[in-house]
Amino acid sequence: MQPQQVEPHVFVIIGATGDLTRRKLLPALYHLRDQGVLETGNTLIVGAALPEIGEDGFRLWAHEGLQTAGWHNDHELREWCDACLYYHTIGRGTADDYVALAAYIRRIEQEHAMPENRIFYLAVPPDVAPSAIEGLDRVGLLKGRGWVRVVFEKPFGHDFQSARQLNATLHRYVDESQIYRIDHYLGKETVQNLLAFRFANPIFESLWKRDAIENVQITVAEDLGVEHRGAYYQQAGALRDMLQNHLTQLLTVVAMEVPVSFDAAAIQSEKMKVLYSIAPIAAQDVVFGQYTSWKIGDQTIPGYREEAGVPRDSTTETYVALKAEIHNWRWKGVPFYLRTGKRFPRKLTQIAVIFREAPAHVFPSIDPGSIASNKLLITLQPSEGFSLCFSVKSPGRPFMLSDHALQFDYQKAFGQLPEAYETLLRDVMIGDQTLFVSAEFTEKAWQLYDPLLTGTQAVYPYSAGSWGPREADALVERQGHQWQLGW
Amino acid sequence: MQPQQVEPHVFVIIGATGDLTRRKLLPALYHLRDQGVLETGNTLIVGAALPEIGEDGFRLWAHEGLQTAGWHNDHELREWCDACLYYHTIGRGTADDYVALAAYIRRIEQEHAMPENRIFYLAVPPDVAPSAIEGLDRVGLLKGRGWVRVVFEKPFGHDFQSARQLNATLHRYVDESQIYRIDHYLGKETVQNLLAFRFANPIFESLWKRDAIENVQITVAEDLGVEHRGAYYQQAGALRDMLQNHLTQLLTVVAMEVPVSFDAAAIQSEKMKVLYSIAPIAAQDVVFGQYTSWKIGDQTIPGYREEAGVPRDSTTETYVALKAEIHNWRWKGVPFYLRTGKRFPRKLTQIAVIFREAPAHVFPSIDPGSIASNKLLITLQPSEGFSLCFSVKSPGRPFMLSDHALQFDYQKAFGQLPEAYETLLRDVMIGDQTLFVSAEFTEKAWQLYDPLLTGTQAVYPYSAGSWGPREADALVERQGHQWQLGW
Repeated sequence: MQPQQVEPHVFVIIGATGDLTRRKLLPALYHLRDQGVLETGNTLIVGAALPEIGEDGFRLWAHEGLQTAGWHNDHELREWCDACLYYHTIGRGTADDYVALAAYIRRIEQEHAMPENRIFYLAVPPDVAPSAIEGLDRVGLLKGRGWVRVVFEKPFGHDFQSARQLNATLHRYVDESQIYRIDHYLGKETVQNLLAFRFANPIFESLWKRDAIENVQITVAEDLGVEHRGAYYQQAGALRDMLQNHLTQLLTVVAMEVPVSFDAAAIQSEKMKVLYSIAPIAAQDVVFGQYTSWKIGDQTIPGYREEAGVPRDSTTETYVALKAEIHNWRWKGVPFYLRTGKRFPRKLTQIAVIFREAPAHVFPSIDPGSIASNKLLITLQPSEGFSLCFSVKSPGRPFMLSDHALQFDYQKAFGQLPEAYETLLRDVMIGDQTLFVSAEFTEKAWQLYDPLLTGTQAVYPYSAGSWGPREADALVERQGHQWQLGW
Repeated sequence: MQPQQVEPHVFVIIGATGDLTRRKLLPALYHLRDQGVLETGNTLIVGAALPEIGEDGFRLWAHEGLQTAGWHNDHELREWCDACLYYHTIGRGTADDYVALAAYIRRIEQEHAMPENRIFYLAVPPDVAPSAIEGLDRVGLLKGRGWVRVVFEKPFGHDFQSARQLNATLHRYVDESQIYRIDHYLGKETVQNLLAFRFANPIFESLWKRDAIENVQITVAEDLGVEHRGAYYQQAGALRDMLQNHLTQLLTVVAMEVPVSFDAAAIQSEKMKVLYSIAPIAAQDVVFGQYTSWKIGDQTIPGYREEAGVPRDSTTETYVALKAEIHNWRWKGVPFYLRTGKRFPRKLTQIAVIFREAPAHVFPSIDPGSIASNKLLITLQPSEGFSLCFSVKSPGRPFMLSDHALQFDYQKAFGQLPEAYETLLRDVMIGDQTLFVSAEFTEKAWQLYDPLLTGTQAVYPYSAGSWGPREADALVERQGHQWQLGW
């Protein structure tokens, strides 16, 4: 994580005309240029996709997209689009298409005297990615005088076998050290902040263990339904779509030991140790749910089975909650409750660290059960920050306690935070894999959850707009806990 | 500290026409009545002092004083003064004077069918207190059908011998359980809050020990000079006037073990254990100072030796800083720095808990020395609250930390807090000695500081308006520490 210069390179987006490019990649790239990280002539961005829109067409489309993303249509923006954006069709991805693309890229590199450093961002559906990488390899683009890095988006397989196969395929063409698997949750400031929070503040790290912590809750609540993704989601479900990747990443960052240093290998290694320490998850410790329709006044929010692309008898889960146990010296006995779902009352990504109660109560006028536990609530969405919840004495007599929270809001403290993609693209460019997902992580995470993906477990209905099925409350109440509903 | 009813009683103020009565006692009493703690006919307040002003004179004087203290001159106020305030001269305190006072009090008690519960508040100079208590005893006022409590103000002696003698004298007439020695710092909400803070919040109490804490600093900074108290102060000095009592009380509250329960005996016992664990304080661990004059523009703030009633060659300290070490399992190796003085830049009473640094640093881009320690700053004056200081990651790259503080302000959270005297008078009335100073405490505290009161130690000059002599900085720097200047 050292500050590093971005070396001259070509940044190739395969599948460049999609939504991701326009909404996330181009704004992130332009913002990096705005901050002086990228310099014209130093980073050339090459779009490649099916449409034959040509350089001008791509620049126009990008230009429009950046304006939509809030940039002014000024001289600088136009100049950047003209100077830095390139495009070549990749057609349907035939051998000839790749030959043509390779020729195009090499020509640009020569024109700009580039050292053949290349980043290939695969913004393509998962089933297309292996053939794309193979195509690039066949025409020699993955080998050159400079370095080559390849960026992938999830999903990284849909179970252990498919993930292993995918990784094996990729490793035929590129080394693991060249692969950047994106989990955009890891690019958020708060995740990195969590590392700073833990390891720069001994008061918190001293408490970060079974002696002090009662349970940890990781919630990724979405207020939306499946939207237009019904057909994909039907094959995935909440566990595959969210829990196996995002929540499991957060879990390992929260639970990891102090790394030897703050570099990618050390951090990845600590995260893996957490994964390997998670005990097999019992079927009774998992609750699946599926949202049903909800009427409020005149409006009806459709249930999952009423969504487009979803069979009327679907048993795909739109909600999953589970209890994970980490069998190591730090965490044995502290349940990690993970929970994610669609159609929650509101959008909320939160890590709640619930501390143990005082072992003995000394206040005679206070019912021990009424004293709230200390809590640290780390919020990633909708705003990034944390709250520390504690009790203070109420003024006067009798001696009573009242609960308060101190809140820290990153935006308020620092203004606008960098977008996750900005952080992640810069890291790819400087070659820092800290915030990316390793092959080993994807495979081990699938191994952990595969036994739960039998397709035979009960899926409990929950009303759209609620916090999930009642069965999920029972899951935590069994150990005397409660879901944290956030501040 | 159970909520308790105030039983019917007579509240006698000996030395009733002084400043304390008008500025503190009467407003506190009237406010307690306002809150329904005191009821007319239940608590009769009897002033006794030299002037022959009679009941009407006392009521008028009290009435004026309460208006000055901010109460409206309304029907209720007048009614209360007329119904609840009584007065009888005590002349020069001859035997006959006490006989007359006793007759007056007994008459009132009979008129109101009072159960002979009596509180005697001795608002008299310390050298007069023993003779007053003797006078009350001689006429039998300390014995009756009800209970008797006696309230004293500091100083409780000026060294170990005098304190022991004073306590022995008092114990001839009243039992220790009847004696309420006031240290108004203990009546402040924050001191009680500190107990709640520690024992209701396991996250803080878990950190409250040598493993996590680097040093503790207790500062009572006054911005004023000696004002009109030069002659008294000249005999006392900062150690006797402030450190032996207020700062030592705060020290024991901060450092005490968790009491078995929240009652007076249990808490007093834990405070005593701290006192007994303090190692003898070496002469080299004490720094005395005396303020010198300070010119700012046209204005000159006089030095201590220029104050009225102070000899030009005075060596009385107006500043003292020392390092105390508590030799027990919780605190061994953690310096407790105490510091108090006059003519500081501002008024500040603060307990600063400085936590240990992280044992290892994992951020390659950050100089370990630049990472601020975690701190908990508990402020009693000018406002009551606490700040928790921590580091967070600054947004973006390179990985940098920035220091922030979360602040909790009791007034903002709760509105107006009760005055210390209100809390303390109520406690006297319900018979709760938790917040009062025991005979054992005063004596043991004097024993601790007596060896430092040789009158031969160097007294270093410091400019009025500064934070004390440089020699006091050296005291903490010797162990690599720094004085906390507050937030």
